[in-house]
Amino acid sequence: MSVTAAEGFVASGLHAGIKKRRFDMAMIATEDRRPVPCTAVFTQNKFAAPPVELGRATLQANGGQAAAVLVNSGNANAGTGAAGYKNAQLMVAATGEALHIANSHVLVCSTGIIGTPLPMDPILSHVPRLVKKLSVEGAHDAARGILTTDHQAKEVVIKGSTFTLGGMAKGCGMIAPNMATMLAFLTTDADVPRSLMQKALKAASDATFNTLNVDGATSTNDTAMLLASGKRGKCDHDEFTNAVLAACRDLTMQMARDAEGMTRMAHLTVTGAHTNDQARIAAKSIVENNLVKCSWYGGDPYWGRLMAAAGSAGVDMSVAQSRVAYGGIVVAAGGVAIDHDGTALAEHMMGDEVDIEVHLGAGHGSAKMIGIDLGPGYIKENSKTS
Amino acid sequence: MSVTAAEGFVASGLHAGIKKRRFDMAMIATEDRRPVPCTAVFTQNKFAAPPVELGRATLQANGGQAAAVLVNSGNANAGTGAAGYKNAQLMVAATGEALHIANSHVLVCSTGIIGTPLPMDPILSHVPRLVKKLSVEGAHDAARGILTTDHQAKEVVIKGSTFTLGGMAKGCGMIAPNMATMLAFLTTDADVPRSLMQKALKAASDATFNTLNVDGATSTNDTAMLLASGKRGKCDHDEFTNAVLAACRDLTMQMARDAEGMTRMAHLTVTGAHTNDQARIAAKSIVENNLVKCSWYGGDPYWGRLMAAAGSAGVDMSVAQSRVAYGGIVVAAGGVAIDHDGTALAEHMMGDEVDIEVHLGAGHGSAKMIGIDLGPGYIKENSKTS
Repeated sequence: MSVTAAEGFVASGLHAGIKKRRFDMAMIATEDRRPVPCTAVFTQNKFAAPPVELGRATLQANGGQAAAVLVNSGNANAGTGAAGYKNAQLMVAATGEALHIANSHVLVCSTGIIGTPLPMDPILSHVPRLVKKLSVEGAHDAARGILTTDHQAKEVVIKGSTFTLGGMAKGCGMIAPNMATMLAFLTTDADVPRSLMQKALKAASDATFNTLNVDGATSTNDTAMLLASGKRGKCDHDEFTNAVLAACRDLTMQMARDAEGMTRMAHLTVTGAHTNDQARIAAKSIVENNLVKCSWYGGDPYWGRLMAAAGSAGVDMSVAQSRVAYGGIVVAAGGVAIDHDGTALAEHMMGDEVDIEVHLGAGHGSAKMIGIDLGPGYIKENSKTS
Repeated sequence: MSVTAAEGFVASGLHAGIKKRRFDMAMIATEDRRPVPCTAVFTQNKFAAPPVELGRATLQANGGQAAAVLVNSGNANAGTGAAGYKNAQLMVAATGEALHIANSHVLVCSTGIIGTPLPMDPILSHVPRLVKKLSVEGAHDAARGILTTDHQAKEVVIKGSTFTLGGMAKGCGMIAPNMATMLAFLTTDADVPRSLMQKALKAASDATFNTLNVDGATSTNDTAMLLASGKRGKCDHDEFTNAVLAACRDLTMQMARDAEGMTRMAHLTVTGAHTNDQARIAAKSIVENNLVKCSWYGGDPYWGRLMAAAGSAGVDMSVAQSRVAYGGIVVAAGGVAIDHDGTALAEHMMGDEVDIEVHLGAGHGSAKMIGIDLGPGYIKENSKTS
């Protein structure tokens, strides 16, 4: 049931015709159509899409609440200027009208190609149908409706002792810190202060979505959103915070496994940095380095590329104290190759997930990041708009 | 004649057996074996290779002069630690001995795979043979001896009114600002102050080599070097500076055309930035963006990706004042698509070189950068060490 697992929410999804065949619209709404506390984390891209600008403005103006969210995939309504903003408002108005709720309680999200006007006819004409289909059982359809080049719907349910937290997400290409072309919708039936919701969602996003780096690109449309119906009353705040983190982590791993053209995932830990910030900069330099990414595709433990990528990141590094390990097998120390179990290493490198530690030898800062290999599939998916 | 076009220099190249078949060693020397003024620009990578460390130390200690340069390709002698430093010194000593010159007048450069010890036997045993082969006619052999995955030797000759400047280079993968896996050797017969040599080489490197971005990776070994025999006496300083710039520009274009797996080159100009530095940051974000690079491979004028890449660079940008043009054809302004000649655009996009201007609408800063497309060839060349 994912996004409707928590009490008080319904959802739906369908094919409206924005995309050729796959589902391309989704709706989430409160069961009683009343607004509930809602918090969101949006993209930091300066070329943010109109629906993002509108969503920010709406939540700011209404103090952080929503009764419905309308989502379309296939077209991001980005790079569409004032006309795009107007179209986002038309989507809000159509949803408000069909649900008989105030426009100020409606949020919209779009994802897909950028720079092309939204096809408004199929979108607006399918809003009433989305409303009609709203149900607890509609969660999976909704999860399908938000996908772009994803192969699989991404859903999660976390059962707390006194509450449920559910959600859905879409990911794929352009995922990078901070949150690119990533949409995530979480709902809960806990009654929690809005400030806690915001803090938990921001912290979880930083620790999960923002550690996933598919191709270094950050998108115009990313949004993570959390709605709380409060139906099951107060809950333990730590348990709630942990549940949000667990849900985001689960969705992040689903996104990583389904990244465009990916064949292998790398769990990189940079340690021994001067500061945590420097560790993060070095980690980003490594996971975004195409030579490194190609070596992961080839299953090649080319540690020198990792060191070279770290060395070009502009952070403190003591080569003499440095160390590189794959799957716990140290292959280089002090900047030179050292003897290791080649068979065990080769086996680890051919797995679906590779663990890597790069120790910079310059302090106690550390950071984790998830990288994705670069293979022919990525290029195939991204060399043409359609 | 390239690197021996200027009076006073000889060169040679051969196959020593570091690589399977192709030439893998080169030597440049002064004809009379006397040291001449020499200046160099080295990589800024913190994981710099031993030959780079040794070269820096040598030029610092001897006040900037050299009588010979020994180069090997196939192995970068990087990630090799103290043993690698010792091997670089052994290469220096073998060259000094074979040429009967002081070790302090010998520089060595290595390029190729990193993290693997240099095969010293073939290298040392072929130094006497390189010396024997030294000649003015040996320039092309030398240009072949420094190549790694390059398909073609890269050579240039600039004839000044009173002097000649010649050179050779190797490029390919890992080229990024600042100067990654790029070796360039320039020689001149002008008699110019060392300070002018240094200034001209640094400025030319910044304006040419450092604007070429193949894959965002910066290498452990890049070096650009300039030697001046002084044989033809004083020259006009501006003319000399311009000649160094012209030679570096020519070699840069040869490197771009021969980049690993490349099919298309993009000449990007970012204008309207708050400062030149911000323009450079935005340009780097654009040319290193894999979605952008894939769109170049596909010949797809996907301007939204350029704007999204600029928008995620963290620099000032006014979407309302922004503009994107391909080949002078403005396709977006104010953050939205505008009418344009689609046929002319499609024709421009399918060419070998694409011109792109991204105007950020935030000031008067600008920067130029050369980007390379991302296609299957790059992955094929980089997913396995061998």
